[in-house]
Amino acid sequence: MLKTPLTRLFQTSRHFVQTTTVPARNVSSSERPSGLIANSGIELLTWGTPNGHKAAILLEELKAAYGKPYVYQGINIGQNVQKEPWFTKFSPNGRIPAIVDHDRNDFAVFEGLAILSYMTKHYDPEYKLSFEDPDDASRAEQWMAWQHGGLASFGPMQGQSGHFYRAAKERIPYPTQRYLGESERLYGILDAHLKDRDYIVGPGTGRYSIADIANFSWVNVSFFGGIDLSKFPNLEKWWERISEREAVKKGTSVPSESPIVNRAYKQRLTDEPEFKAKEDELKKLGDKAKEQYNYKYASP
Amino acid sequence: MLKTPLTRLFQTSRHFVQTTTVPARNVSSSERPSGLIANSGIELLTWGTPNGHKAAILLEELKAAYGKPYVYQGINIGQNVQKEPWFTKFSPNGRIPAIVDHDRNDFAVFEGLAILSYMTKHYDPEYKLSFEDPDDASRAEQWMAWQHGGLASFGPMQGQSGHFYRAAKERIPYPTQRYLGESERLYGILDAHLKDRDYIVGPGTGRYSIADIANFSWVNVSFFGGIDLSKFPNLEKWWERISEREAVKKGTSVPSESPIVNRAYKQRLTDEPEFKAKEDELKKLGDKAKEQYNYKYASP
Repeated sequence: MLKTPLTRLFQTSRHFVQTTTVPARNVSSSERPSGLIANSGIELLTWGTPNGHKAAILLEELKAAYGKPYVYQGINIGQNVQKEPWFTKFSPNGRIPAIVDHDRNDFAVFEGLAILSYMTKHYDPEYKLSFEDPDDASRAEQWMAWQHGGLASFGPMQGQSGHFYRAAKERIPYPTQRYLGESERLYGILDAHLKDRDYIVGPGTGRYSIADIANFSWVNVSFFGGIDLSKFPNLEKWWERISEREAVKKGTSVPSESPIVNRAYKQRLTDEPEFKAKEDELKKLGDKAKEQYNYKYASP
Repeated sequence: MLKTPLTRLFQTSRHFVQTTTVPARNVSSSERPSGLIANSGIELLTWGTPNGHKAAILLEELKAAYGKPYVYQGINIGQNVQKEPWFTKFSPNGRIPAIVDHDRNDFAVFEGLAILSYMTKHYDPEYKLSFEDPDDASRAEQWMAWQHGGLASFGPMQGQSGHFYRAAKERIPYPTQRYLGESERLYGILDAHLKDRDYIVGPGTGRYSIADIANFSWVNVSFFGGIDLSKFPNLEKWWERISEREAVKKGTSVPSESPIVNRAYKQRLTDEPEFKAKEDELKKLGDKAKEQYNYKYASP
């Protein structure tokens, strides 16, 4: 069977060899997880990918807003822990993240959108990260579904873009420009939507919510995926705004600091000449692929 | 900009030249839509793709269950009607389907998952197609999100599989086997889930719901996408069960009969020798691509 693109993506990073100080009750990559570790509260089974960050950011926000605690286990996707029967019992698709709610009969939730929705339905009684108004709730769901089907997750465009831009064994021009182009189209959609807004959904200029969290986690790895965020000024300002939140900083460090998020990526360009040389080479190949297929940016 | 894979997919079909008898208030492909046509009830803006069928099936089910009427307009994606400003006002991503609820201030919903969710929240008071129990409601959402991010929609795997298997200008082995393989993996997940179940979510052996509708619309074009459904016996029985519903037959004929759904596809193999020869050729290329990259089926 094919390895997942994300597995390859993250195997090329320093992520696997990096261990950081984690809270005492949490287990990171030092030992191979073989079952649940908590018996109350929320247990997050995750890895430091954009989809993992999505869940961790929300859990950090709920912790900040309500003091709701959670524990996590690092599920090393490079070692295929997510394919083991104890894990697929909770996440049948064999993908991170998943949550288990020990306070509700160990109810398990897989798929990012469903996790954000479940957690806010049960643990956001004051609608600090979600919406009471049914129209705004639907709008948030629309943009989360858009993120799922388009912007990212394992399947969709930015994930595929990363695969062909970086991770696949061969650099094949056609799919490379196809997914870079489609990712840029999607960035254009969200950039246009944010023209007069600070956040994706909510009255006036909007209010920070799960719709932002869902999309942020992927925009937060745009440069690593070969997309120049500075070409999308509204989106870049929105990214900046969200990345400054404390809970977002904490969430994107679960289960450990990520070397592929935009800030770390830019730092590496400065600090690591070899990394920069490789990135320049990838960019050249991406540009060439676009040229070969006469790619023109257009949105929608 | 790239054409979408679905555009290409559906341009190769007879879909564009076929006009069928449609209810008097509905508008099919005979004229180019330029705005909304109704001022009460639900207006569906759609085309005969799996994502379009998803919305149309639910609307037909709600019509059968509650007598809730709807009208539709065919949005010809081969003519890029979905890119026009009047349409993207309702569906900013420039994709079908979208709905407009004229009874709730012309509230617009895009993205299949959000449409199924919105319609059942507002118009399924007896939970005939959705769940009152919050755990089952979450389970339905998990499998709908799984479908969005994995099984299909524009971005995900089966859609990409169709693109490289059939629609792209070049037949490139690596992505062809990549997406066929990932689609088969996903079919395996749902097949395993349906081992002792008739429907995806619900007590006992389950109850037909929006989770089934979301996934059915893509499994319903499996053969056209290069996937042999008979290799997944639980899934095939589930597909058979759902495809016999009246509302499903009606919904998959909106805005006109589809030549790519499994039943029509099989009929064409028998009726059209040229079509069969072409399909056999595609299958051979798909098998060769799998062999070249040493593909082995595995799930999850």
